[in-house]
Amino acid sequence: MKNLKTNTYAVGIDFGTLSARAVLLDLETGSIVAEALSEYTHGVITALPEGNPLPDGYALQHPKDYLDALSACFASLWQTSGVSPSAVVGLGIDFTASTLLPVDGKGEPLCFSTVFKDEPHAYAKLWRHHGATKEAEDINRCARARGEDFLSRYGGKISSEFFLPKVLETARRAPAVYDAAACFSEAGDWLTRRLVGKPLQTAVFAGYKALWSEKEGFPSAAFLEALEPRLSTLFTEKVITPVKSFPDIAGYLSEEGSALTGLPVGCAVALPTIDAHAALPAFGIVGEGELLLILGTSACHILHAKEERQIGGICGYVQGLFPGLYTYEAGQSCFGDHFAWLAQNALPDAYRAAAEQEGKSLFEYLNTLAEQVPVGADGLLALDWFEGCRSPYDNDALSGLLLGLRTDTRPEAIYRALLEAVAFGTRRIVDTYKEAGLPISRMVAGGGIAEKNPLLLQILADVLNAPVTVPLLPYSSAVGSALYGALAAGAIEDPAAAGRLLSYEERLYTPSGNAKAYGEIYGEYLSLSRLFAEGEGLSLMQKLQNRRA
Amino acid sequence: MKNLKTNTYAVGIDFGTLSARAVLLDLETGSIVAEALSEYTHGVITALPEGNPLPDGYALQHPKDYLDALSACFASLWQTSGVSPSAVVGLGIDFTASTLLPVDGKGEPLCFSTVFKDEPHAYAKLWRHHGATKEAEDINRCARARGEDFLSRYGGKISSEFFLPKVLETARRAPAVYDAAACFSEAGDWLTRRLVGKPLQTAVFAGYKALWSEKEGFPSAAFLEALEPRLSTLFTEKVITPVKSFPDIAGYLSEEGSALTGLPVGCAVALPTIDAHAALPAFGIVGEGELLLILGTSACHILHAKEERQIGGICGYVQGLFPGLYTYEAGQSCFGDHFAWLAQNALPDAYRAAAEQEGKSLFEYLNTLAEQVPVGADGLLALDWFEGCRSPYDNDALSGLLLGLRTDTRPEAIYRALLEAVAFGTRRIVDTYKEAGLPISRMVAGGGIAEKNPLLLQILADVLNAPVTVPLLPYSSAVGSALYGALAAGAIEDPAAAGRLLSYEERLYTPSGNAKAYGEIYGEYLSLSRLFAEGEGLSLMQKLQNRRA
Repeated sequence: MKNLKTNTYAVGIDFGTLSARAVLLDLETGSIVAEALSEYTHGVITALPEGNPLPDGYALQHPKDYLDALSACFASLWQTSGVSPSAVVGLGIDFTASTLLPVDGKGEPLCFSTVFKDEPHAYAKLWRHHGATKEAEDINRCARARGEDFLSRYGGKISSEFFLPKVLETARRAPAVYDAAACFSEAGDWLTRRLVGKPLQTAVFAGYKALWSEKEGFPSAAFLEALEPRLSTLFTEKVITPVKSFPDIAGYLSEEGSALTGLPVGCAVALPTIDAHAALPAFGIVGEGELLLILGTSACHILHAKEERQIGGICGYVQGLFPGLYTYEAGQSCFGDHFAWLAQNALPDAYRAAAEQEGKSLFEYLNTLAEQVPVGADGLLALDWFEGCRSPYDNDALSGLLLGLRTDTRPEAIYRALLEAVAFGTRRIVDTYKEAGLPISRMVAGGGIAEKNPLLLQILADVLNAPVTVPLLPYSSAVGSALYGALAAGAIEDPAAAGRLLSYEERLYTPSGNAKAYGEIYGEYLSLSRLFAEGEGLSLMQKLQNRRA
Repeated sequence: MKNLKTNTYAVGIDFGTLSARAVLLDLETGSIVAEALSEYTHGVITALPEGNPLPDGYALQHPKDYLDALSACFASLWQTSGVSPSAVVGLGIDFTASTLLPVDGKGEPLCFSTVFKDEPHAYAKLWRHHGATKEAEDINRCARARGEDFLSRYGGKISSEFFLPKVLETARRAPAVYDAAACFSEAGDWLTRRLVGKPLQTAVFAGYKALWSEKEGFPSAAFLEALEPRLSTLFTEKVITPVKSFPDIAGYLSEEGSALTGLPVGCAVALPTIDAHAALPAFGIVGEGELLLILGTSACHILHAKEERQIGGICGYVQGLFPGLYTYEAGQSCFGDHFAWLAQNALPDAYRAAAEQEGKSLFEYLNTLAEQVPVGADGLLALDWFEGCRSPYDNDALSGLLLGLRTDTRPEAIYRALLEAVAFGTRRIVDTYKEAGLPISRMVAGGGIAEKNPLLLQILADVLNAPVTVPLLPYSSAVGSALYGALAAGAIEDPAAAGRLLSYEERLYTPSGNAKAYGEIYGEYLSLSRLFAEGEGLSLMQKLQNRRA
């Protein structure tokens, strides 16, 4: 392969919700020569100071965990691989988003200081921190009232998981933290700053999470002034500019970065990316009409298109992450977590015992039973909103529903109904893209569920009535980040070439004879969705949600 | 007490779905001196001949089971009590309904003959045999088209569980059985016939299940002719007339009856009654405005009123069962079976283990957890239609629903949602009676659930916002039947006196501070019910049901 240096390596690290996963990629063979996992010490903080529970919905992290996991991963890579750090030409990381933290002028997190160590708002707010629900509503209302254009890039409204609601929450609840913050930074940008020794702001974070676009920039000071006068200088004084995008790179490893990683000073460091996007180059999803489905506890649906479209219910889009393309993102807030819920809360232990006896995992065993349940879950229909609905309704008040329960309803039928529901939810999003005029020519599914649950993937191909490919590439986000590291080092020419470097098997799921029946049942799912998200059922959903709060 | 003979006894036997329960009642002390239980050998037949599954929804019984259980119960009573059979003055039985069977001219069930032993339609069709769904639709349609009055006595339509759909099913599917039948008889009437040696037809069965009324009699030959010419002589030739009602009695024990029971020939035998009604005299529910809730696997709501009202969604009413009263009946097809479903299909075994460790029954333990779940099941709302809906919709296509599911939804919240749902279903029926202008002055709950589940009864009192009394009288149906036996013998003067004979404790549940919140949440239940039984959701319910069939 052109431009490929022999005996060179790149490292990628995927910073997830509870742990970091690193791979050391041989750029000659395209193979993973070592991998490492490091779990965060504090994980998700729900009490602060210790023993003092935070409000419901709070999800904080300690940024020290990121530094520790970074170092632990590298130590493990060196130990297990025997590769010389000097053979590594590039490094890339990906991160959850919007996971943001306030830092001082030197890039030190405010929570590291004794002044703020007991102040929740000085810590990193994890992507699924839901403390800023009211702030998100205020932002949506204010933006609509002023006719701000930016909302239309985010499907018409933003959620509490975005950057601005989280910062507004800090300004209101902890004004001292807001005032002390030199900058609010995405954790991915912040950690990369520690590696290269200079502050940065990346387009992928700013574009998907902080209301920025190439054409429009950040929301205006006038909007911020109307929203909350205290925030009027947020985007001029408390974020890093200019916003950088591929093919820019973050820089080269600093002394601090070298100390943290064991890599030599000067090693190329890629701009960080969002975890769900990192797999794109690894899976060769680099052209128009290519859709990546990341199927894990939740799901993310990333589509490249040549056209700019403002689509209701889609999470957002960013221009130029890949040359000449707009990259759209949509999401299902709950995907695999439906099945985890069932396994933990609504399954007799006899199923576990039977699985063990047959030498199968619980879900392998459940799949053998669910395969026997007639299409349409034998008269059950579910809504896949156990964590609210991201796309297309972006409404946290929506909740899960099971319809068609009978005294002879068995757990495997409920399981199948949930499998079908998440597939219907995915089709809803795929159809939303198509109806907006964005072509879809190829669908690739990655993430833990895609690799582990063939029945779900078959149902997905049937419900989508289209082939779905599953690349059998482990640690695909970390591998993608390593590819970005290699691109930053100039060891690979472009993202398309990056994908071709790797070789892996693929599983192909094609629509079966069930596809026709699913066409009809999807119509029922659509009716039920609309009834509860747009129709008479919506006020019920809202009342139930209010009763919980 | 006036007219009470000392040292006399009566026997009552309650023939349930799976077993018969007998009591020997001392008419001097009002106490139960012995009780016996006999399970049916064949139970509910779902394959015939053996190994040959019957269609979905079929539920047949072998009438030999009733004879065997009768004899077994008596044998046990004599053995355990030491009472001389000659001291028994009266016998009464109650039975499920409409549970009917075709018999020959001598009262022999057709299924006893070698000709028909493999013919399903020659067996007893249990109350919950659902093979005649289409026949019920045909009857409702034909009756409406002809403007027949009788439907209005049954809430506007009848279900497949009624007498006529089951007979029509036989005439269509097994014409030889229909032709060979000298008579179609309720199992309660048939078994009493075996005791007294002469055929009989009782008003309680004919009135609630066979479209008969004191004023109008049975449906006309012209209606039957229009429905199905083959059936035109059904009510003139294949049922017993005249229809008899309290204070008539069935007669006196025949030699066959004596052989079956061990009682002396000539012992008085009461007219049989429907199982749910048998407890009325035992609980002293004998006056206007008194409502009996029988809470078991399903629920039945029996109200005495002075007025005749034709009420949509009510199962039926019969005049004169108690002097000067109309006795109305409504029903919830699934009540306690919701909780059995949860325990068997959607509960991790850890709950069973914890219950055992605390020395509690599973539901006692679940109640301690469910008591901690906030009112409104912490944002869950269920529809109690796991076996369709009897009152007020009389629609088998309706099914259960769980709304508000979240990844943090725990089994005890689902359990509480089901407890609340059945209570809401009961309130719906109570409100239907009230809105029709029938006063309700006292509510008494009996049946297994009423005695065993104090949390459910408290929720019921809160949801109804009225006191609910639970008499702590075991085997109340069998005791009620024994009282009818005593009445038949003239050992007690009237039903009101019958109730006063007994002494038992009562538990009183009065509305708590939760009643107000339940007023609001009931409104949500009502909205959800209407959405799925009258509104946009109904066609979805129907589609799901069709997919199962």
